[in-house]
Amino acid sequence: MSRIAYVNGFYRNMRDACVNIEDRGYQFSDGVYEVCEIRDGRLVDMARHMARLQRSLSELRIAMPMPLTSLAVVMHEVVRRNRVHYGIVYLQITRGVARRDHAFPAKPVQPSVVVTARSLNLAKNQDTAAKGIKVITVPENRWPRVDIKSVSLLPNVLAKQAARDEGAYEAWYVDPDGYVTEGASSNAWIVTDQGSVVTRSAESGILSGITRAVLMDVLAALQIKLEERPFTAAEARQAAEAFVTSASQIVMPVVAIDNQRIGKGEPGPISLRLREEFHRFSAFS
Amino acid sequence: MSRIAYVNGFYRNMRDACVNIEDRGYQFSDGVYEVCEIRDGRLVDMARHMARLQRSLSELRIAMPMPLTSLAVVMHEVVRRNRVHYGIVYLQITRGVARRDHAFPAKPVQPSVVVTARSLNLAKNQDTAAKGIKVITVPENRWPRVDIKSVSLLPNVLAKQAARDEGAYEAWYVDPDGYVTEGASSNAWIVTDQGSVVTRSAESGILSGITRAVLMDVLAALQIKLEERPFTAAEARQAAEAFVTSASQIVMPVVAIDNQRIGKGEPGPISLRLREEFHRFSAFS
Repeated sequence: MSRIAYVNGFYRNMRDACVNIEDRGYQFSDGVYEVCEIRDGRLVDMARHMARLQRSLSELRIAMPMPLTSLAVVMHEVVRRNRVHYGIVYLQITRGVARRDHAFPAKPVQPSVVVTARSLNLAKNQDTAAKGIKVITVPENRWPRVDIKSVSLLPNVLAKQAARDEGAYEAWYVDPDGYVTEGASSNAWIVTDQGSVVTRSAESGILSGITRAVLMDVLAALQIKLEERPFTAAEARQAAEAFVTSASQIVMPVVAIDNQRIGKGEPGPISLRLREEFHRFSAFS
Repeated sequence: MSRIAYVNGFYRNMRDACVNIEDRGYQFSDGVYEVCEIRDGRLVDMARHMARLQRSLSELRIAMPMPLTSLAVVMHEVVRRNRVHYGIVYLQITRGVARRDHAFPAKPVQPSVVVTARSLNLAKNQDTAAKGIKVITVPENRWPRVDIKSVSLLPNVLAKQAARDEGAYEAWYVDPDGYVTEGASSNAWIVTDQGSVVTRSAESGILSGITRAVLMDVLAALQIKLEERPFTAAEARQAAEAFVTSASQIVMPVVAIDNQRIGKGEPGPISLRLREEFHRFSAFS
């Protein structure tokens, strides 16, 4: 499969798609990213992703390298050139190329822009959702600025690998007080015995997930009660249901936490319903 | 100035020196690095840097991509091709190129190796040392695995920029208990009124600096008392002297912390002596 990427103004074959070794993304993880779902060849909830992108860049004082409308054109073009109907588009923006020095370049440089897209296997993902995934818990060990969607992801890499090592798919971070913050690459949710859906407030400790935000609209529309509050790992292990959200997984049921069965050990009805209904409330572009 | 870099088996001009956009160093900061001083065209304390490199790679379960002897040949060759007599050589090893996924690639890939070298201005650095530098303190906000010399450096970038914004050169992290851990790109030291040199133990909270380790040998040889213990920012601001150590700065006197003058507001005699004596105790290769 020949894949095409956009890199700093050019569409390249993946094997020729490269960035300079002094790109600050490579030497300092000085950059941000977004992942959008692609469905029927269209980008899901793009406006919200772009708003978050702007915020991440602003927090790092990286200039937006091109107008949002141009960026949208590029993202659609990468999706088109890769013939992705169902999958994800990945956008990364870094501070750019400069002689290595921790502080920002004295003379601002042009930020680097990379866009890739790839197909996911819808049938396989539906199958995974029908079975549910396992998660483990790991101690929260990331810096507090997880509200910035940066590529400084080494702690997340190690957490995710720890999950794989234990035969699980995701790792949930647990803070020193016992509260779940979020997953290594997803937001964490539980459902109570009373049928309330619980997730932590995005005020601290987590990334403000786009799928998370859209799901709140879904809950409101379906008149399912939302409790936006912290929950402990202990409460999660006793919950009626659990699931994670992310752009690539939408609503993915969790059937075990730390090898303890959640509910009946199969995807819960509320989780599955939210997964089914989700795209009725998404914006497509 | 045409600069030459080694990238995955080839010596390239800097402008052509690139890595794939799916290098995990770029998307996940999944890699490590070392910086060695070059003096008289020779590499300083190379063996210790290589030992730390091996430890960092091992902690991340990244395979050493080539024998250490070959790596040493490459580093010397990059120094030679760039005609560096005084300066630094930079080595970065990442987990390699793989389709984006947080967890390690299921099939191990070849790690990426990048080596660059550049000249520093010795006269300018000596001038800086003669004047001393200013540091600010910032809250410690990095993950606990700062013992791994990884490229997941965004927190350090922001700390260093915060220092620049305040007209200072370095930022010292201060933990919630008020203790200084280390600088954004250096180890932190103070000298007491009694002439003892104080630095935090490398058991937790800091990178085990190579320049730091060599300096301990210097202190022993010069019969200067070392206190390896935590010190608070308050103690540091009242100290007789302060300085930082790193491969690119060796011993760099600090003359102000948070705009509070240290000692007489000029480099202290012990700091300057340690800077002068340092290379008598270094290994050259």
